[in-house]
Amino acid sequence: MSQRAASSSAAGSSIGIDVGGTKCLGVLVEDGVVVDETRRPTPDTGPELIEVLRSIAAELGGNGPIGVGLPGLVRRDGVLVAAPHLLSVRVLDVRTALAAASGREVWVDNDNTVAGLAEWHLGAGRGIDDLLFVGFGTGIGGIAISGGAPVRGAHGFAGEFGHMVIDPGGPPCPCGRRGCWERHASGTGLARLARRAMEAGALAGLSAAVGGTDRVTGEDVRDAAIRGDADAAAVIDELARWMALGLVNLINAFDPALVVLGGGLAVNPGLYLGPVERAVHDQLFARAEREPPRLAFAVLGERAAAIGAALLPSLAG
Amino acid sequence: MSQRAASSSAAGSSIGIDVGGTKCLGVLVEDGVVVDETRRPTPDTGPELIEVLRSIAAELGGNGPIGVGLPGLVRRDGVLVAAPHLLSVRVLDVRTALAAASGREVWVDNDNTVAGLAEWHLGAGRGIDDLLFVGFGTGIGGIAISGGAPVRGAHGFAGEFGHMVIDPGGPPCPCGRRGCWERHASGTGLARLARRAMEAGALAGLSAAVGGTDRVTGEDVRDAAIRGDADAAAVIDELARWMALGLVNLINAFDPALVVLGGGLAVNPGLYLGPVERAVHDQLFARAEREPPRLAFAVLGERAAAIGAALLPSLAG
Repeated sequence: MSQRAASSSAAGSSIGIDVGGTKCLGVLVEDGVVVDETRRPTPDTGPELIEVLRSIAAELGGNGPIGVGLPGLVRRDGVLVAAPHLLSVRVLDVRTALAAASGREVWVDNDNTVAGLAEWHLGAGRGIDDLLFVGFGTGIGGIAISGGAPVRGAHGFAGEFGHMVIDPGGPPCPCGRRGCWERHASGTGLARLARRAMEAGALAGLSAAVGGTDRVTGEDVRDAAIRGDADAAAVIDELARWMALGLVNLINAFDPALVVLGGGLAVNPGLYLGPVERAVHDQLFARAEREPPRLAFAVLGERAAAIGAALLPSLAG
Repeated sequence: MSQRAASSSAAGSSIGIDVGGTKCLGVLVEDGVVVDETRRPTPDTGPELIEVLRSIAAELGGNGPIGVGLPGLVRRDGVLVAAPHLLSVRVLDVRTALAAASGREVWVDNDNTVAGLAEWHLGAGRGIDDLLFVGFGTGIGGIAISGGAPVRGAHGFAGEFGHMVIDPGGPPCPCGRRGCWERHASGTGLARLARRAMEAGALAGLSAAVGGTDRVTGEDVRDAAIRGDADAAAVIDELARWMALGLVNLINAFDPALVVLGGGLAVNPGLYLGPVERAVHDQLFARAEREPPRLAFAVLGERAAAIGAALLPSLAG
């Protein structure tokens, strides 16, 4: 049974929960506005996760529907089937289990998908019929809007942009291939680029400050670039070129009017947006004869996925 | 003005013309059936092309609308803006010029796009709501169908899958980047793989037969593989892995139920389909937890784009 067929919800009050690698963020949304929120650590097992989700909903109150965003492949019937960064489970029927535990209607989808839906309905992509949302975090995922409708795919798995191979001799990816885009253009990728720069003798100050090459994170590089470190700015430029390489691949496939960059990496437009825009314009197919898509940063911040999850019941109705 | 807004056609008799690098193929289609066809060499200039298209329509008769498939970026208003393999023009308003010359309604779109529409409506993809059509010829292009609607993009340029970079250190592409998918997985790519195999000492018989490494074509390799040449079969397997690499990237983005392989390379399912299917299954993200999409070869053959062009007036109505 599809989630759509089961819908009986309308707009109004709903709860959205974003399940991240370390924390679960729940929001209570009324008429598109966040009126309350709460957080819990993400547990280690499926049954514990269902209990955390139930208790977040109980704390936020009411009896409206619950939407959940999960980091993995989510089938249209609400079953999580692959979540390499989450739990020890391979298959978890979040929808059925949480509906039974909470007594509420439950909707489930991929976290980057719901973040993109939130930016499309309430954020940077409002009113755009041909839109590409790409979330850059630990991994990369997103959603395309085509002609005013989300591109969901036959099983609901569309938008796994991070597992686009762009460098077949590149680093191995947990998905089983090598050189996936998210190995290069995510937070993980930024740390890798920084380590390579350190091994080539750059970023000496940062290397000393964090206690060695192996300990540097993407956030460290970002913060050093903000402080004016020229080596760190060069690493950000390299990241921007990897981001643009994949973005142009997707622009060639989807031809969006607007590309919204979201996720944990996309919180410093002043740092990233210029380099990414320049690199996209440089790499665009037939760039002399076409208008490039606009690029914008997401505006809903770290709540985007939770807000989008809260929209699921009304979108499906 | 969009082409959609200008439509006044219904189903019935229409003419479709596929403009290829060397020849133009025109078909007269009545109720989805080809009832007449004709060919002309593709000329070198824009005005000559309009005259060839006009004369094909005049020969095929009637006064119904004309659809044209062109190898390049075609804007939604019917203007060709980038056709690296065609003519010396950069911008050509095929729609306005041919409408004036013929006195008929004219619809224009990309050749791989219309081939995909033909396979979706009348060929291998009938009845499938989430479909990916990829045409492998001199280059690579195609179209995705999402939730029963074509993914066209903001300007009509969606589906330029061939210019997805999959190997940033790879051979340069006329589009300006390096390592585009169509450098590896097209007819051009097959010839390149064969030359590399010859330089490594393989395919000695074929090299002698065609008169040297530089003269081998993709068709030569295909024919040698059909004759049972083991080296040629190994090159086809390598091509299949490059095809699958890009196909899996697109499957991760679109999650289709069915992938239709079309274009000039996709005429020997017995030769290619097995290796491509095996390579797609090997590379699929989360392959243990999902059903892979079905793969099928196009069934409309070399007429697919012309038939699809003839469908444009009724699809826009």
